[in-house]
Amino acid sequence: MYSVSVRDHMMVAHSFKGEVFGPAQRLHGATMIVDVEFRRPGLDPDGIVVDIGRATEVLRAILAGMNFRNLDDDPAFKGHNTTTEFLARVVFDRVVAAIGKNDLGAGARGIESLRVTLHESHLASAAFEGKVGD
Amino acid sequence: MYSVSVRDHMMVAHSFKGEVFGPAQRLHGATMIVDVEFRRPGLDPDGIVVDIGRATEVLRAILAGMNFRNLDDDPAFKGHNTTTEFLARVVFDRVVAAIGKNDLGAGARGIESLRVTLHESHLASAAFEGKVGD
Amino acid sequence: MYSVSVRDHMMVAHSFKGEVFGPAQRLHGATMIVDVEFRRPGLDPDGIVVDIGRATEVLRAILAGMNFRNLDDDPAFKGHNTTTEFLARVVFDRVVAAIGKNDLGAGARGIESLRVTLHESHLASAAFEGKVGD
Amino acid sequence: MYSVSVRDHMMVAHSFKGEVFGPAQRLHGATMIVDVEFRRPGLDPDGIVVDIGRATEVLRAILAGMNFRNLDDDPAFKGHNTTTEFLARVVFDRVVAAIGKNDLGAGARGIESLRVTLHESHLASAAFEGKVGD
Amino acid sequence: MYSVSVRDHMMVAHSFKGEVFGPAQRLHGATMIVDVEFRRPGLDPDGIVVDIGRATEVLRAILAGMNFRNLDDDPAFKGHNTTTEFLARVVFDRVVAAIGKNDLGAGARGIESLRVTLHESHLASAAFEGKVGD
Amino acid sequence: MYSVSVRDHMMVAHSFKGEVFGPAQRLHGATMIVDVEFRRPGLDPDGIVVDIGRATEVLRAILAGMNFRNLDDDPAFKGHNTTTEFLARVVFDRVVAAIGKNDLGAGARGIESLRVTLHESHLASAAFEGKVGD
Repeated sequence: MYSVSVRDHMMVAHSFKGEVFGPAQRLHGATMIVDVEFRRPGLDPDGIVVDIGRATEVLRAILAGMNFRNLDDDPAFKGHNTTTEFLARVVFDRVVAAIGKNDLGAGARGIESLRVTLHESHLASAAFEGKVGD
Repeated sequence: MYSVSVRDHMMVAHSFKGEVFGPAQRLHGATMIVDVEFRRPGLDPDGIVVDIGRATEVLRAILAGMNFRNLDDDPAFKGHNTTTEFLARVVFDRVVAAIGKNDLGAGARGIESLRVTLHESHLASAAFEGKVGD
Repeated sequence: MYSVSVRDHMMVAHSFKGEVFGPAQRLHGATMIVDVEFRRPGLDPDGIVVDIGRATEVLRAILAGMNFRNLDDDPAFKGHNTTTEFLARVVFDRVVAAIGKNDLGAGARGIESLRVTLHESHLASAAFEGKVGD
Repeated sequence: MYSVSVRDHMMVAHSFKGEVFGPAQRLHGATMIVDVEFRRPGLDPDGIVVDIGRATEVLRAILAGMNFRNLDDDPAFKGHNTTTEFLARVVFDRVVAAIGKNDLGAGARGIESLRVTLHESHLASAAFEGKVGD
Repeated sequence: MYSVSVRDHMMVAHSFKGEVFGPAQRLHGATMIVDVEFRRPGLDPDGIVVDIGRATEVLRAILAGMNFRNLDDDPAFKGHNTTTEFLARVVFDRVVAAIGKNDLGAGARGIESLRVTLHESHLASAAFEGKVGD
Repeated sequence: MYSVSVRDHMMVAHSFKGEVFGPAQRLHGATMIVDVEFRRPGLDPDGIVVDIGRATEVLRAILAGMNFRNLDDDPAFKGHNTTTEFLARVVFDRVVAAIGKNDLGAGARGIESLRVTLHESHLASAAFEGKVGD
């Protein structure tokens, strides 16, 4: 299995509901450093997994929808805690949608699975991985 | 599959038996930077994989049992080389035991598998991964 | 010149005033990974620059005053943009005050200067350095 | 599953053919930081996955064949774009061959699979993973 | 003294002349991860050292002049070995020129000194630092 | 001012004397990742600060004298706590001595100052810097 991984980041505010979160129930924020790993069993005729330039643009566009925002105000997340693991899934779903809309090029249809990792600090991260077709 | 990873470290002395280890047969030491990745297929009702505060405390308690010690003196490791890969398994087993004792909360019973990685330097690391129920 | 550096972090929300900040004028957030470097010309009789345990506790206490908060609500920062460089100075001033109150031990009075660095992402950081007696 | 990972690097020049590569069609270069992860279900009698010293030497020897070279001139790569993902496969195949020739010692025959990751920058990497016997 | 640091990178090919370089006399390449640290004694009225957005754009533009190229073909470097330390000076001089042309805004005229660091691998880096007015 | 920095590491055991060290009074160990920064005002005729190959060899030889050892047994450190800051000075003194013996080549006599940094974990480091002629 081949894979290619690209990195970008976003800076968001949010708060959590639930005693388990302790002081993180207060409005606070995080820098999320985001790695998206694209996986496929073989390379395309150019010898690549994905057009890394387009992958980078697609990731930037996805993060731009959340970057420099208070996620508590985003209707898409209403009723959810925007935990790091939850946001990993959000980015995963949006990259899958971008592949479906051909935003990464026709070749990217060969992508079999993705792993999206969000690093919230030098000590903690969360990830979501799954098949593209699921 | 969702996952959450937390990091801590320990500073240990030890020596190895066997020609394959060359100069590492002498008493020496290492900083082991430890990442524990918790994996489960879905999130709990709070939107998390595991209570990251409790996971951090559990990891700290496990490492405290080895931190600032000469592992050659630990009866639990008698007859074993405490290599980085061996220690990854030790930490794995102890985290699994902590889940079993509910130290990470009832929700953590949803954890399906773990990956424990020990970085012994900027050049080398070892890991053990497996199912929690194995 | 000897130095010792310790690392911790905080997760804050804030917004900035001024066109120069573009989208960062909106309420957003950041993980600030904080390094404090303590410098002195000679070591103390124990062979250390500073008691690293106490330095770590002092840093944690200083960051706890801002961690998991919206800095826009902190009266201490009223009328200021809490930029990364501004916060580096805040941490610097608070570490200097802690040294003055002997929170790092009598030996820490030998500390001549500090450098406080805040990493806001994998791409950008800010720092403030100065003499302790200034 | 146990694993051990070692790191080394190479500094290469190359150019790519195909519009998808944009400016990377020009002759340019890269530092490739290479991680090889060796995986096996159990440890050998010494308590190790692989002799880390020999693994490091084998990796160095493999990279020495490409290090400080223009990969466009290497007959082994004729007709291929030496993308990061392609090179991950090249290193994979050569480590597998070294295991087959006993260069990592008889014990390394227990290695079941490998993951080879090449970091081309702080933002992008590629990997190839597979079974050793495939 | 306050400072702000931004990071970008370039991927270049080059060769060196001189026996001291050994195999690096051959055409090879490197990823150069570039940090530019801007220093000034006080903050501007917005509470910043420099407009980090413009600083990032200026750095990108400077690196674009060398990125994805064979530096042996650049007339600006004729008769020089484009070592990492030499390139650190090149980037330094070009950032100083950009400040002089107001590309970083009028406020950036308060910048007193710069440190430019180029990381050529996980093991080696080079830097040039100096006053802006020198 | 130009500089070049190289990295290597050592894995040592030791214990400390003095209540300030708490549990670190016990025999334990550390991986010390060592960066040596060489500084000089101008480049040599080859366009370098120092022969990076020889600098790397000199650093490896210096660390080999401590690597895979219990520093409590080293007569050179008798009566001293081998703290990270103390060891930074030891490496500094030994690099200075190597420059004096021409081990880095005649050109290295232009080196004006050094900074030696030892990273004992992802959270703490110590350094010693000074002029070469002092």
